[in-house]
Amino acid sequence: MRTSVRPIAIVKKSRPARTIRPSLAIALVWILVLTGCTPRTPDGPAADLIPLAQDAGVYHGLDPEQPLIANTAQTLAYAEFLQAHFAPWEPDRTPIEADAAYWGLTHFGTAHLFGENTLARDPDWIKRLGRYARADSYPSMNRRAIAVTNVNMRVLPTLPPTFYDPSRAGEGFPFDMMQNSLVAAGTPLLATHTSEDRAWVLVEARYAFGWVRATDIAWVDDGFETFFRTGTYAAIVRDDVPVVDGDGVFRFDAHIGWILPVLQGGFGDNGMALVIPVRDRRGDAVAQVAFLPSSVVRPAPLAATPANFTALINAMLGRPYGWGGLYEGRDCSMAVMDLMAPFGIFLPRNSRPQAASGEVATIAGLDRQAKKRFILARATPFMTLVGKPGHIMLYIGQHDGEPVVFHAVWGLRTMHQGKPGREVIGSAVITTLEPGLELPTLSRPDGILLETVTSINTLGPASGATP
Amino acid sequence: MRTSVRPIAIVKKSRPARTIRPSLAIALVWILVLTGCTPRTPDGPAADLIPLAQDAGVYHGLDPEQPLIANTAQTLAYAEFLQAHFAPWEPDRTPIEADAAYWGLTHFGTAHLFGENTLARDPDWIKRLGRYARADSYPSMNRRAIAVTNVNMRVLPTLPPTFYDPSRAGEGFPFDMMQNSLVAAGTPLLATHTSEDRAWVLVEARYAFGWVRATDIAWVDDGFETFFRTGTYAAIVRDDVPVVDGDGVFRFDAHIGWILPVLQGGFGDNGMALVIPVRDRRGDAVAQVAFLPSSVVRPAPLAATPANFTALINAMLGRPYGWGGLYEGRDCSMAVMDLMAPFGIFLPRNSRPQAASGEVATIAGLDRQAKKRFILARATPFMTLVGKPGHIMLYIGQHDGEPVVFHAVWGLRTMHQGKPGREVIGSAVITTLEPGLELPTLSRPDGILLETVTSINTLGPASGATP
Repeated sequence: MRTSVRPIAIVKKSRPARTIRPSLAIALVWILVLTGCTPRTPDGPAADLIPLAQDAGVYHGLDPEQPLIANTAQTLAYAEFLQAHFAPWEPDRTPIEADAAYWGLTHFGTAHLFGENTLARDPDWIKRLGRYARADSYPSMNRRAIAVTNVNMRVLPTLPPTFYDPSRAGEGFPFDMMQNSLVAAGTPLLATHTSEDRAWVLVEARYAFGWVRATDIAWVDDGFETFFRTGTYAAIVRDDVPVVDGDGVFRFDAHIGWILPVLQGGFGDNGMALVIPVRDRRGDAVAQVAFLPSSVVRPAPLAATPANFTALINAMLGRPYGWGGLYEGRDCSMAVMDLMAPFGIFLPRNSRPQAASGEVATIAGLDRQAKKRFILARATPFMTLVGKPGHIMLYIGQHDGEPVVFHAVWGLRTMHQGKPGREVIGSAVITTLEPGLELPTLSRPDGILLETVTSINTLGPASGATP
Repeated sequence: MRTSVRPIAIVKKSRPARTIRPSLAIALVWILVLTGCTPRTPDGPAADLIPLAQDAGVYHGLDPEQPLIANTAQTLAYAEFLQAHFAPWEPDRTPIEADAAYWGLTHFGTAHLFGENTLARDPDWIKRLGRYARADSYPSMNRRAIAVTNVNMRVLPTLPPTFYDPSRAGEGFPFDMMQNSLVAAGTPLLATHTSEDRAWVLVEARYAFGWVRATDIAWVDDGFETFFRTGTYAAIVRDDVPVVDGDGVFRFDAHIGWILPVLQGGFGDNGMALVIPVRDRRGDAVAQVAFLPSSVVRPAPLAATPANFTALINAMLGRPYGWGGLYEGRDCSMAVMDLMAPFGIFLPRNSRPQAASGEVATIAGLDRQAKKRFILARATPFMTLVGKPGHIMLYIGQHDGEPVVFHAVWGLRTMHQGKPGREVIGSAVITTLEPGLELPTLSRPDGILLETVTSINTLGPASGATP
């Protein structure tokens, strides 16, 4: 027999918040006990590659409850974060320049690219993509939108992966050059253009811009914006949190770094009622309410204490590396950005501008011992980033006189019988700055992480420059 | 300035068809000129690997307009095809057995699997997936649904790819062992179970069953089913056809093999008005109308003429290989299944049952010359499949006394300095049964396709067995 069970229907219309009776809204919320959670694997490297205890709490030597940023300074930083978060919806927002929007056409225009079948792409492929992306008529719209699921944002409007030469070490799967970033469900977007067939929309978000599938976003009007911008926001503090709305409908998985509005009056004893965007049949955004328990969500911003940083980092450890956020994993810069977001600290999406945020000290010219001494003397656990071209890490303290970092890392450069390779770590881990030093195949000196570190930079108002 | 242009809104409600005035419905359809089409690359192997003309029309030697199946027989086959297509919506449908539904847990239970970071997965990963997939409580529902986009159907409810040992030839990317099949937008489904968190739904379709994201399907009620089953269906005859509805909203890309209902009275001079499923804010299916021009859609079934087979095959040639339909490409069996669907010929999803369809002749014991003679004597162009374990091809005629086949193929087995490898073809191509015979690195005898061919089977009523 066919059953036709339907969950109780409680649809929140796209209306200004002030028409909603908060206590009633909360009472109506269908409280879901969150038992489910997609199994992720701590797919790890050989244990001896990461011998340090995978616990961010044991290296910092600080009072766990003492904030690393003054209250007033954090308030300021958080206000700036929210401004950046909602900037795509500002009425006078100017779309980025065409040259920036279409950087991929130039950057990959003459590159030797390989397709999803690992073979060389047709040399005219990028040209055809340029026509499909209608570079000539950019921009064609200026419209508010929102991500209704976790969205793969692409450099150009193309779904299959595109690689550099897969036969080269560190290229090929999973390094899809068209993957710009994962964009969190609930992220405000400015839509400025579409592909010829409307399958793709060019959007700008807080930390990135690029092409997304039209079906993964919804259009935002004044009513939705008013309802969604409640003024009170929550930070997700666990990965793989299923978000199920008041109708019992699964919407998306939330992860550390995701920021969502709290419904007015939405604080309950056991958790919070959040406002989430849902796409209606015409592609417009309507608001729904989802209740999340206290174990996975906290009011934003979190106090910037070592204890809070430790809890978030420990929750991120072991998660498989995800280039550009592929498969909802994290690459190096996404790990740092997602970690800072719950504290209301805005960071750009890529490692280079991240390493230029706050107070920067260049250490490119120093030898390894001098670099270590400099870092140990000048870095603040959880607030100092350690950078090299193409990689970013977070300093979290020391172990036996060695600086210790948290980072999402693909692997270490190796050289075996004259052939470059990678010792894959492939996850978010805690290491020294010289992981794999004992490997006979480690490429020297370029495979020694510390050798290639060029700068440290300390975030936060202490440095006078929360970006 | 922000513009808020909205396309004219014409939403077809989920109501029985007989309440719709056909001529009015057509008049309302917002006719979209289809200029867009996602650029796909004919990412190809070295030209000398596929020296034959890539034109399916030059090998068959038949009257191009003479049907290969009698009219009455094709009518019968088409009725069976439609019955299978809509079988998931039959009221008395019994869900598949638990052992079948969860075959992945057994099959991969002790396998050495590798994750998206190319490292070994935790040995308990499959066990955790089993709990997440709630194998103990299967089945928990019996509910009609429909794919609202092209859906990745997974063996188990897990998003990131899972590989066999990537260091082995022919394993690793793109051979994601969790990818069961792409399922076409508009495909009727029976939903029988969900994951713990409702993020995934276990569904059965015409040709496959497996786990799909809950957000990629919509629930079907009597009203929708009545409206959707118009009794007249259309076959898509080009790949990468953007389907944009009457509101101007992009919905999905259709490809050869996709079957969609024609709106009552939906035949126009320049094309057809099709009924497509759209997901509303609660996750229920509502019907929308999309107009497609005659160049990309034809009434089903197409006459089974060499000319029609040739046109479809030629449109599929060069498309990158897609294991399990990844990135909306095709693997060997999907190419054959998708090619036969427009003719109303049902084929199972996998190569083994495909090779057992119709009149089967085993040729495993013959030598290469005898196999060629047998095939040339007994095979009918476009109606005879040529099979080996794990691969299926379509016989399309001969060239200089060599049997010629159409197939989506990953690559040829090679052996170089004792190391097995693959000469990647990675696309849908026309070849002889001995491609790469001139390669010094071709693995012999197992790399010679013809050596490993074990059977041919002829589809259609001529053999008394349209499956």
